[in-house]
Amino acid sequence: MKPRSTLTKKTSGYRLGIDLGGTKILAAVVDANGQIVGMAKKKTKGELGPDGVIKRIVDTASNALDVAKVSLKAVTGAGVGAPGPIDYETGMVYSAPNLPGWDEIALGPRLKKELGVPVRVDNDVNIGTLGEFTQGAGIGCQNMIGVFVGTGVGGGVIINGQLYRGFRYAAGEVGHMVVIPNGPLCGCGRQGCVEAVASRTAIEKAVRAGLAEGRSSLIGELLVAENDRFTSSIIEQAMTAEDPLMLEVIGNAQFYLGLLVGNLVNALDPEVVVFGGGVVEALGDRFLQPIRDTARAHFIQQRWLEKVKIVPAALGDNAGVLGGAALVAAPIRKG
Amino acid sequence: MKPRSTLTKKTSGYRLGIDLGGTKILAAVVDANGQIVGMAKKKTKGELGPDGVIKRIVDTASNALDVAKVSLKAVTGAGVGAPGPIDYETGMVYSAPNLPGWDEIALGPRLKKELGVPVRVDNDVNIGTLGEFTQGAGIGCQNMIGVFVGTGVGGGVIINGQLYRGFRYAAGEVGHMVVIPNGPLCGCGRQGCVEAVASRTAIEKAVRAGLAEGRSSLIGELLVAENDRFTSSIIEQAMTAEDPLMLEVIGNAQFYLGLLVGNLVNALDPEVVVFGGGVVEALGDRFLQPIRDTARAHFIQQRWLEKVKIVPAALGDNAGVLGGAALVAAPIRKG
Repeated sequence: MKPRSTLTKKTSGYRLGIDLGGTKILAAVVDANGQIVGMAKKKTKGELGPDGVIKRIVDTASNALDVAKVSLKAVTGAGVGAPGPIDYETGMVYSAPNLPGWDEIALGPRLKKELGVPVRVDNDVNIGTLGEFTQGAGIGCQNMIGVFVGTGVGGGVIINGQLYRGFRYAAGEVGHMVVIPNGPLCGCGRQGCVEAVASRTAIEKAVRAGLAEGRSSLIGELLVAENDRFTSSIIEQAMTAEDPLMLEVIGNAQFYLGLLVGNLVNALDPEVVVFGGGVVEALGDRFLQPIRDTARAHFIQQRWLEKVKIVPAALGDNAGVLGGAALVAAPIRKG
Repeated sequence: MKPRSTLTKKTSGYRLGIDLGGTKILAAVVDANGQIVGMAKKKTKGELGPDGVIKRIVDTASNALDVAKVSLKAVTGAGVGAPGPIDYETGMVYSAPNLPGWDEIALGPRLKKELGVPVRVDNDVNIGTLGEFTQGAGIGCQNMIGVFVGTGVGGGVIINGQLYRGFRYAAGEVGHMVVIPNGPLCGCGRQGCVEAVASRTAIEKAVRAGLAEGRSSLIGELLVAENDRFTSSIIEQAMTAEDPLMLEVIGNAQFYLGLLVGNLVNALDPEVVVFGGGVVEALGDRFLQPIRDTARAHFIQQRWLEKVKIVPAALGDNAGVLGGAALVAAPIRKG
């Protein structure tokens, strides 16, 4: 027998993981061991509408295959995370916030036609949670909750080793659990959701309100222009400098995220709560420790407090594509 | 062949369902079709301590078997609901509120020894939820949340057709989800739990505080003495008379129970939310409709609002014993 070159790609067993976001599309080719063997990235250009964006998804997937030197014939399926509520069984995106024109778009069937492989579509935060569960901070546990703090606050729920989607495929919307009755207005139109106090959007709003009130703060220097981007890096710099306004606003966000975790643990008693998203990545344990403390103080079951792990996500931006690839192997069923 | 008398009891396939409460013990013999064929009831007499109470549980079970004319030999197992946190795998009761001396009592093994049949023990509210799921208001669904409003507020979670217990067997404590940060003191020592505004205990506290402030109210006549029992029936009478103080206090409880349900639906998207307990039984849909309205207004997924049923429990006091019997057939495993 001729020895096989280690550079020889296998000719089967690859999966495509695709993460469709409001600003960028990520695609990865993942091998049977869950390793990424090629990746590509494109701007979403949502203004092109569903047809244009779907074409860009296909192009990104194609680029990832080129990078990986894997042909579509070697791909068993694609798993896609997309924003907004999705019918997981049919692959239809009901609506996608930040993507104009996405109104009941049959993303799964359309990508299947373009790519020629089976395609599964699920909510992007569910997919990120699945990625962290299968290959990140939740490896080996059975019950996990993912909380992602970015421009919004999203979540996902793993029960008995599987992504739990709920009756209307609407489970995991932990960002819209109300923690302050009649509290600050949320992007969803309601009041007092966690997202309305703890998302980067809410943090920015509170900080800008403080600046407008004339509070002296380093952030005034970091944000020179009114429309300068308020990034997680700016939050990190202000926190490192112990800027009082930022400490106050972040402290508030941490308190309510802690309450949220306490509430979720009292309802679901998971083994692990994974925190991901830009703010968490930028601040790390500085962000998480106060959340942990508040959460544990609110656990009704005070035995084995430390058994419930509250940990940072491990995969960063790759959670979505790895979760997408994991979706290919998951059973299609209700619940 | 001789015709069999319809009075002849079968000689196998019966299960014992036992509901251990702070004030009373209920036991039922349940046949293979889930029908109760005999029941008995005793006062708990918690002051007798664990040994005395365990003897009374055995006596109650024995009385139920007598009433059913079924011998222990025909019983395949017993399922017991007990208050407090419980190790479902070993049948140990860690502690039982309202039952003095219950500190790590091996209730399962001790009852197994006394009764001579396999015994499973779980939290009483879990068992009530399981009863409503298998034979009550949740029949046929896959994902259900039970909320029981009585002296406290308890809950149970059914996921994918099975009781979900969580990592530390502590899931379902929905009464201790915080809905008012820094809100009224709860019996658990924390602040602003749903239980602190919506339990009968909380309702009584708020009503008595109103009376003490000199508010004119029919309840002053219904509760003649300071230590008159504040029953669900008194709540019902005052509501029927449209007593302003009671309407206000109940309205407040309903609002926060509605928020709780909204939060739970956003996290778990169940098919059915079942409301049980004395207050719900006494007031019926008058109690539930405002809860439904508030909950639905808080659903983040506004599609198919009515698909998520919010309904009264169907089994009343029998939910516990029927859930206990259902437990006998359930698999023992984590999660």
